[in-house]
Amino acid sequence: MFHHSLPIQIRFSDVDRFGHVNNNAYFAYYDLGKQEYMRAVLGPDVFDSEIIPVVANINADFFLPLHYGDTVCVETAVTHLGNKSFTLEQQAVNIATGEVYCRCRTVMVCVRRSDGQSIPIPERSRRLIEEYEKGAAN
Amino acid sequence: MFHHSLPIQIRFSDVDRFGHVNNNAYFAYYDLGKQEYMRAVLGPDVFDSEIIPVVANINADFFLPLHYGDTVCVETAVTHLGNKSFTLEQQAVNIATGEVYCRCRTVMVCVRRSDGQSIPIPERSRRLIEEYEKGAAN
Amino acid sequence: MFHHSLPIQIRFSDVDRFGHVNNNAYFAYYDLGKQEYMRAVLGPDVFDSEIIPVVANINADFFLPLHYGDTVCVETAVTHLGNKSFTLEQQAVNIATGEVYCRCRTVMVCVRRSDGQSIPIPERSRRLIEEYEKGAAN
Amino acid sequence: MFHHSLPIQIRFSDVDRFGHVNNNAYFAYYDLGKQEYMRAVLGPDVFDSEIIPVVANINADFFLPLHYGDTVCVETAVTHLGNKSFTLEQQAVNIATGEVYCRCRTVMVCVRRSDGQSIPIPERSRRLIEEYEKGAAN
Repeated sequence: MFHHSLPIQIRFSDVDRFGHVNNNAYFAYYDLGKQEYMRAVLGPDVFDSEIIPVVANINADFFLPLHYGDTVCVETAVTHLGNKSFTLEQQAVNIATGEVYCRCRTVMVCVRRSDGQSIPIPERSRRLIEEYEKGAAN
Repeated sequence: MFHHSLPIQIRFSDVDRFGHVNNNAYFAYYDLGKQEYMRAVLGPDVFDSEIIPVVANINADFFLPLHYGDTVCVETAVTHLGNKSFTLEQQAVNIATGEVYCRCRTVMVCVRRSDGQSIPIPERSRRLIEEYEKGAAN
Repeated sequence: MFHHSLPIQIRFSDVDRFGHVNNNAYFAYYDLGKQEYMRAVLGPDVFDSEIIPVVANINADFFLPLHYGDTVCVETAVTHLGNKSFTLEQQAVNIATGEVYCRCRTVMVCVRRSDGQSIPIPERSRRLIEEYEKGAAN
Repeated sequence: MFHHSLPIQIRFSDVDRFGHVNNNAYFAYYDLGKQEYMRAVLGPDVFDSEIIPVVANINADFFLPLHYGDTVCVETAVTHLGNKSFTLEQQAVNIATGEVYCRCRTVMVCVRRSDGQSIPIPERSRRLIEEYEKGAAN
C-alpha cells in the first residue's frame, strides 16, 4: 500500500525524559514525509503555488515506543481523493525490523492562499497523485 | 464542560513560514494542558510514580489558523474513565474572543513503567478525577 | 542592570532524557524575551516593518541545570547600541531563588528585508531603547 | 580541519515566517553532529556511561540565511582537550556550494552523573579523540 518511504533523522530533542521519542515528534516526521511525497509526486514548485493543502484532521495511533538510535522511516500514501479534500495515510516503521511504531491518517483540504477559501483539488495534482498511487502499485 | 484552563505562551518557533502557528505546536500546548490538569487534580508527585499514562490515540480537528500574538488557552477535561484507559478532550481557544482553533481527543492508557504492561487506573486517581469533573460542574 | 523580565512557560518537550531542560531550549526562551522587549520598547508593529534585526553572534554560558517544574524568567537588556548593530544581554533566572541558570550575549544587526543589506539602527528605535534603558535605571 | 561530517535533514518546523531556518535550529543540528562524532570516535555506549559531557559555553557566528530545500551538513572537530574540558568546533555548510552558514565553538566539561562534579576527561576518551583528529589529518 505504501510506495513512498523517507528515512528520518531522529534528533536528540525528540527524546523525552523516559528515553522515548516524544509522541509529538512523530508529527514532525509525518510533515517531512508529506513534503517529500508532494515534491516527488507534484514537483518542486508545489509550495510556491497559490493553493496550499491545509490540515483539517489528524488521527494517530501509537503502538510501540521508539528509542533514540532506532532507524525509522515514514511511509506515505494518498488513500482518498475527494473534491476539495484528500486523505493521507502514514506510518513510522523500523527500517530494520518492519515494526510499526505509529500510524496516522490526515485529512487535508485545498485552500486558496489569497482568501483562505477551500477549493477543488487542481486537476493536474489529482491526476499526478492518482498515477503515482496506481503506477507505484504495479 | 471544561473546568481546567491554561494560558499558553506561544513561541516564535511555533510560527511557520505562512505566518500561522504550525499544527504540530498544538500538541505541545495540549501536553502542557495535560500536565497541569494532572498536577492540579492528582497532585505534584504524579509523574514520579511507577504508573505513567501513555498516549494510545490522538484525534485532532483544526478549525481556524492561529497567529503569533493571539492570546490562547488550552481547556482540558477527562470525559471518559475506562478500566485501563481514559479519554481527554482538549481545545485551544482564543482568550479574547472564545473562538476555538483546534479540538483534540486523546486516549491514554495506564502503563506500569517497570514492564510496560497496561494496568487498571489506580483507584485514588480515578476518584480524584471523577470528583474534579463533577465538582467542577457544580 | 535588567529592567525587562518575562516569565517562561517550560514545555515538556524542553526536557531531555536526563531530566534537565535541554540547552537549546534556552534559545527559545531568549527569543521570547527578545520579542517582548522589542514589543514593549519599540511598539507592536516592529516586526511588520521593512527593517528586521538579524542575529550575528550568540555567546551563552551555562551555569546550572534547570528542571521541569522550576519557575524561570528571562531578563533582557540592550547593553550596547552601535551604528548598525546592537548587543543584548539576557539571563534565565529562577524566579523563587534568583539563581542564574544561563547567561547569553547576542549581537544583532539591522537588515533591510528587501535586499538583505545591513543598515543603521533607525533613529526612533535607538532613542526609544536608550530612554528605556536609562529610564528603567532610575 | 574537519574530518567528521553529517548531512542534516531540515524540518518544516525549522523554518520561520521569513522563510529562513531559525537560528535556534542550528543548535539541534550541532547536537546531531556532536552525537554522531562521539559515537564514531568513542563507540556506541558512550552515553550509557557514568560520565557525561555537559555544555559550559556556546559561541556561534551566523553568516548567511539557510533556506528550506538547501542541502546542509554539519562538520565537527575537537580542537582542544584540556584537563576536565574540551572544545568542539562545528559549522553548518552547504553541501553543494561549500558556503558556511554558521560556525559554532562549544566548550564542554566532563561531569560525573552521580554527583554532578566535574572530573578529568577519561584517558581512553582522550586518546581516541587525539588519534581520530590526528589520523583524520593524514
